[in-house]
Amino acid sequence: MKPYSGIWPVAPTAFHADGTLDLEGSTRALECMIDQGSNGVCILANYSEQFLLSDQERYDLTKASLEHVAGRVPVIVTISHFATDIAVARARQAKEMGAAIVMMMAPYHGATLKGSAQQTYDQFAAVGEVGIPIMLQDAPLSGVDLDVPLLARMAREIEMLKLLKIESVGTAAKLRALLEVAGADIDGPFDGEEGITLMADLDAGATGTMTSASITDQIKPVVTHHLAGDRAAAEVAYARVLPAINFENRQCQFRAAKAAMLAGGVIGSDFCRHPIAPLPRWASEGYLDLIRPLDPVVLRWGK
Amino acid sequence: MKPYSGIWPVAPTAFHADGTLDLEGSTRALECMIDQGSNGVCILANYSEQFLLSDQERYDLTKASLEHVAGRVPVIVTISHFATDIAVARARQAKEMGAAIVMMMAPYHGATLKGSAQQTYDQFAAVGEVGIPIMLQDAPLSGVDLDVPLLARMAREIEMLKLLKIESVGTAAKLRALLEVAGADIDGPFDGEEGITLMADLDAGATGTMTSASITDQIKPVVTHHLAGDRAAAEVAYARVLPAINFENRQCQFRAAKAAMLAGGVIGSDFCRHPIAPLPRWASEGYLDLIRPLDPVVLRWGK
Repeated sequence: MKPYSGIWPVAPTAFHADGTLDLEGSTRALECMIDQGSNGVCILANYSEQFLLSDQERYDLTKASLEHVAGRVPVIVTISHFATDIAVARARQAKEMGAAIVMMMAPYHGATLKGSAQQTYDQFAAVGEVGIPIMLQDAPLSGVDLDVPLLARMAREIEMLKLLKIESVGTAAKLRALLEVAGADIDGPFDGEEGITLMADLDAGATGTMTSASITDQIKPVVTHHLAGDRAAAEVAYARVLPAINFENRQCQFRAAKAAMLAGGVIGSDFCRHPIAPLPRWASEGYLDLIRPLDPVVLRWGK
Repeated sequence: MKPYSGIWPVAPTAFHADGTLDLEGSTRALECMIDQGSNGVCILANYSEQFLLSDQERYDLTKASLEHVAGRVPVIVTISHFATDIAVARARQAKEMGAAIVMMMAPYHGATLKGSAQQTYDQFAAVGEVGIPIMLQDAPLSGVDLDVPLLARMAREIEMLKLLKIESVGTAAKLRALLEVAGADIDGPFDGEEGITLMADLDAGATGTMTSASITDQIKPVVTHHLAGDRAAAEVAYARVLPAINFENRQCQFRAAKAAMLAGGVIGSDFCRHPIAPLPRWASEGYLDLIRPLDPVVLRWGK
C-alpha cells in the first residue's frame, strides 16, 4: 500500500450572503468533513474557488483552517501561482503554519500563458526545496498538457514531489501509464474531479481520491472496499453514488457541496462570487433529491 | 410534443483491419441500430470519426447508408465544413440522396479558426436555402461558443433550422434558457454526448437524444418513460444504464460502440484510424462487463 491513500476531499470556501469571507462557516465545513471520515482535507483548491480569493483571504483561510483542524487530519494547502517565487513563498508559509502537503498545478495564467515543460519542472523543483511534500495537480484548468514522461521524470528527480492528482482527460489511462513507468517514485497516486472516474482510476492503481466535500462518507466505501481487494463491493458502492456524482460533476460543480452544506446547516449561505452564477434551483433541488436517499452526514450535521 | 423526438444514435464508421473503409460493416451497423429501435440515425458525426474521412469516403458512406436504410427511419447526414460553399454542396447532395436532415457545427478549423457570430448565422442561413431541415450541433469540438441569444435568433429567423443538438458545457441549463426564449421556434431540442446528461436534459425539455449506437435499446426507455410523463420510471431506467454511459463517455468515447459491435458480431473489426489509439483491453473489457448484464441487442445481433 502507498503511504498516501483514502478520500481527501476539497473544502468549500464559505461566504456570507453579502459576499465577504465566512471564516466560521469555512471551519464548520472542515469540521463536518472530519465527521464524514475524511482521511485528509484540501483547502484553496479550485473547488474552494481559489481563483476568486485575494492573497489576504488565502492567508486568513489557511491560518484559520490549520488552527481549527489542529493536526486531527492532514491538510493540503493549494499554492498554485504563475510566478515561481510566489508559489515558493506560499509553500514556505503553509509549511510553517502546519500544512502536511502543498498542492499546485503547472504554472499558467489565463488560457494562453503556460510554462514550458522545463519551466514546469523548475517551478516544482524550486517548491521542493522548501521541504514539504508536494501534490502535483494535473487539471484541465491550467491548459497545460503534462505528458507521462515529464511527470515520471519529475516524480523521479524531485524528492518532495510525492503525490500526483490526475484529473485530466483520460485519467485512468494516464494513471496506468504513470504507475507503469514511475510507480516506485509515487507515494500517492490520486484522482480528483468529484470521483467521476473513480472506479476506473482505482482499477488503474489510484490509492486516493480528492472528491468534493459533499458525500465523503458515502463515497469512502468505494475506496475502502477497493483497497481491501473487494472490487465487487466497491463496484456496488460506486453504482450507488454515481447518479449523485454525475449530477454534481455535470450540473453543479463546486456549488453542489455548498448546496448540501447549506441544506444540512453546516454553512449559512451558498453564495458564490460573481462571475460565478448561483446554482439554479432545479439543480440544487435535483442534487439534494439524489443525495437524500443516501442519508449522508452532511444533511444531518447541523441539525 | 415536438415533431422530432426519441433516440437518434450516431452510426459508427466501420473499417477493415487494414484501415480501409468497410461499407458492408457500416451498413450492418445501421441495420443493428434499426433493430435496436432507433427513432432515427445520424451518419458522419464525430462519433462516426468524420474527421478521419476523405470527401470520397463521406460520399460513399452517405450513398450506401441512405440506400440501405431506404426510408425505414429518418437519416441525419452531418455536413460540417469551414467553407460555407462546401457545407451547402454537401447539404444539397444529402437532400438529393434522401437524407431527412443535415447536421452541422458552427464553422471552425482546428483550435483557433472560428466564424464570428454573424458568420455562423450566415453559414446556417446559406444551408437553409437548400431546403432540408437542419440540426445545429453545439459541440465543444468546434471551439465556438454559441450563446443563447444567437441560437434563439437563428432558430427564429432561419426557417429550415428546426433542431438543436446541445452538447456543450452545461447542456441542461442551456436547453432551459433556449426553450424559454425560443421554444416555439425549435421543433427538436436534443442532447448528445452519449446521454451522459440525459436525465437533466429531459427535465430541461429535451425531446430527443443522440447517443452512441451501442445500447440504444437500453437507453430508449429513459426517453420513452420521460416523454410519457413517468419521470420516476425514467430515473430508474437511467440509473440502470448510467454506469455504462459513464464508462463510455469518460473511458472509451466512440470506440465503445465499435467494441460492442465487434463483440456482437455486427462488424468485423474495431479498427480506429491513426492518430486515434486503439481502445485498450482494460477499457473494452470494462465496458463489455458493464453492458453484458443489460442484455443489449448489440451483443446478440450477429450471433
